[in-house]
Amino acid sequence: MKKKLGPVNALYPSLTTILGAVVGGKTNFITIAHVGIMNHGTPQYVTFGLSKAHYTNQGVIEHKEFSVNIPGEDLMVETDYAGLVSGRNTDKSGLFETFKGELEYAPLIKACPVCMECRLHETLDFKTHDIFVGEIVATYADEAVLTETGRIDPLLARPLLFDMATVKYYAVGRELGGCWNAGKAMKRAGGVK
Amino acid sequence: MKKKLGPVNALYPSLTTILGAVVGGKTNFITIAHVGIMNHGTPQYVTFGLSKAHYTNQGVIEHKEFSVNIPGEDLMVETDYAGLVSGRNTDKSGLFETFKGELEYAPLIKACPVCMECRLHETLDFKTHDIFVGEIVATYADEAVLTETGRIDPLLARPLLFDMATVKYYAVGRELGGCWNAGKAMKRAGGVK
Repeated sequence: MKKKLGPVNALYPSLTTILGAVVGGKTNFITIAHVGIMNHGTPQYVTFGLSKAHYTNQGVIEHKEFSVNIPGEDLMVETDYAGLVSGRNTDKSGLFETFKGELEYAPLIKACPVCMECRLHETLDFKTHDIFVGEIVATYADEAVLTETGRIDPLLARPLLFDMATVKYYAVGRELGGCWNAGKAMKRAGGVK
Repeated sequence: MKKKLGPVNALYPSLTTILGAVVGGKTNFITIAHVGIMNHGTPQYVTFGLSKAHYTNQGVIEHKEFSVNIPGEDLMVETDYAGLVSGRNTDKSGLFETFKGELEYAPLIKACPVCMECRLHETLDFKTHDIFVGEIVATYADEAVLTETGRIDPLLARPLLFDMATVKYYAVGRELGGCWNAGKAMKRAGGVK
């Protein structure tokens, strides 16, 4: 039996990221799990929804650059902390050591196994939220989280999954099957009868 | 040591959904994992990025309504199949039994533990892709996947996580900690020194 819940957002779990930006001349970090993938291709566009109340927004809007860092399970405490305090009244610049890629205002977090630097493509105005559409400029990953063919393995990167309903972080679990593969036998058999 | 990978989209894993729509008078389903969460609030906006080559797009654009269904692990084969064949040359209407909520053109999948019906808020044009921004109208969940307080529990709903790098589906793994909670002790201690 299905229960009607009202207009509840059930698009969880989502991926937990730490957005890095330069605000007022200082590096700042904010935890964001309201993320999105727009397309598949090049340029590659991804979105980050930030309440307009957040301090980080002005840095992204000013410099049109930001970083997206994907913390591993071992960084859960620091990641959660970065979402609990505002850069408006707390200096978070020392929370993580950073490195620079191609962009000037996209501080990349050394301790995160995966980092992307993004150029701001556009900002979508969703009343209470700025939706930053980033174009991915370059991606960096610890060699330890790469497969033999040089791809990021989620079971090695161990990102934090965010769930708004239970208000918990979850790990990525076991592999279940191949994409564009698990349904192949069904296709060969002619699909549903 | 970090390796530079080029502009690789590392915003994975993402949530696997099955979008339901009415195209040419017939129910159609397509598997979509390029999803996004725009804001937090009411109305609640979520996005779905579909290549313009897909057949489903015209149904969403025509009726301005669609469903978003979140399959459990037990539906991996059917879910993958729905992404392997096009409604243009294969009738997928019999793949799932559906039910109707408030909207006329948002066929909800009975076998999926969680379903949402969405009104099309706008379509963002990303050259090769239509990004459908949906406003969530109502959400339905099997009672068996709800917590005692009536919230969707991802460990009970068991959604399929999609990863483009390894081209695999993954399960949701174990609970790691509380959001807006795991970092509280660090905040009390005054953060980073």
